[in-house]
Amino acid sequence: MDEHLKETFVSAEQIYSGKVVNLRRDIVCLPNGKQASREVVEHPGAVAIIPVLPDGRILLVRQFRHPVGQVLLEIPAGKLDPGESPDACAARELEEETGYRAKSLERKASVFTGPGFTNEVIHLYLAHDLFKTAVNPDEDEFLEVGAYTPEEIRRLVREGLLCDAKTISGLYLLQDD
Amino acid sequence: MDEHLKETFVSAEQIYSGKVVNLRRDIVCLPNGKQASREVVEHPGAVAIIPVLPDGRILLVRQFRHPVGQVLLEIPAGKLDPGESPDACAARELEEETGYRAKSLERKASVFTGPGFTNEVIHLYLAHDLFKTAVNPDEDEFLEVGAYTPEEIRRLVREGLLCDAKTISGLYLLQDD
Repeated sequence: MDEHLKETFVSAEQIYSGKVVNLRRDIVCLPNGKQASREVVEHPGAVAIIPVLPDGRILLVRQFRHPVGQVLLEIPAGKLDPGESPDACAARELEEETGYRAKSLERKASVFTGPGFTNEVIHLYLAHDLFKTAVNPDEDEFLEVGAYTPEEIRRLVREGLLCDAKTISGLYLLQDD
Repeated sequence: MDEHLKETFVSAEQIYSGKVVNLRRDIVCLPNGKQASREVVEHPGAVAIIPVLPDGRILLVRQFRHPVGQVLLEIPAGKLDPGESPDACAARELEEETGYRAKSLERKASVFTGPGFTNEVIHLYLAHDLFKTAVNPDEDEFLEVGAYTPEEIRRLVREGLLCDAKTISGLYLLQDD
């Protein structure tokens, strides 16, 4: 039913193959028959976890993000390893970044972060019944974990101090749970 | 206060300069003194608008997104033109994509969509007091506009039929308005 909206693939040119992303330039045919070029950043996909403590507070991590040049407050997240399932990745990243495991880890949604230029998809999980293990941060990750009440988080978003789209998407899913 | 988290810039290598994105590979120095490489997708930034009709319904656009190979349901959005202010861009994109202008167009937040690999920022606007003008879609844009109640939108998110992170972030901001 969407034939009048669809672009069809004509050709692809691989520009870069990297550690995290690849870059491709495709030629597509538009619904009106004209051709256009489309840059596509290929990403392996990721997970992000909304960890809810028994008292209702949510764990967030503070981490320097080089592309934006600042420390951001985010839900724990990480890229899928090759061949890794989203469920396994969510359990691994939650423990590596926060030092908690969850008895209940439920996938709530899978969202596209920048569908105009990248295929990145983030699988969003809700983690309940958390229990503490040992923090095992990745060798290259330097982060701080904190627990925030829903009211504190609403204020942080309103004041622009929490400005990560996957995290705010997760908050919507949590409210609607 | 965040010195123990910060990465410092060492060097940059420009890999690609494109129509929408550029790609850079940077070397950074980690807090522990080791060096690491960071791929950075440079993006011009964008706006997205949550257009609320007088009856409370929200305008969404359906549009084919080549990077993810499917038609997505999203709030109207678009990239900043060179030198264009976010406010001007929001007014322009709202009219181009939906055929409506807003008497009230208020910036609610600016969010990062993929801070691990791109500097893209999306300025999210709430548009009230809409009035119809003529639809002037971009030459290369093929899209359909529809109006949805908040209940319909919650169901679409829950069923995975609305899966765009900027749109879901916008819904959080709207709920919290």
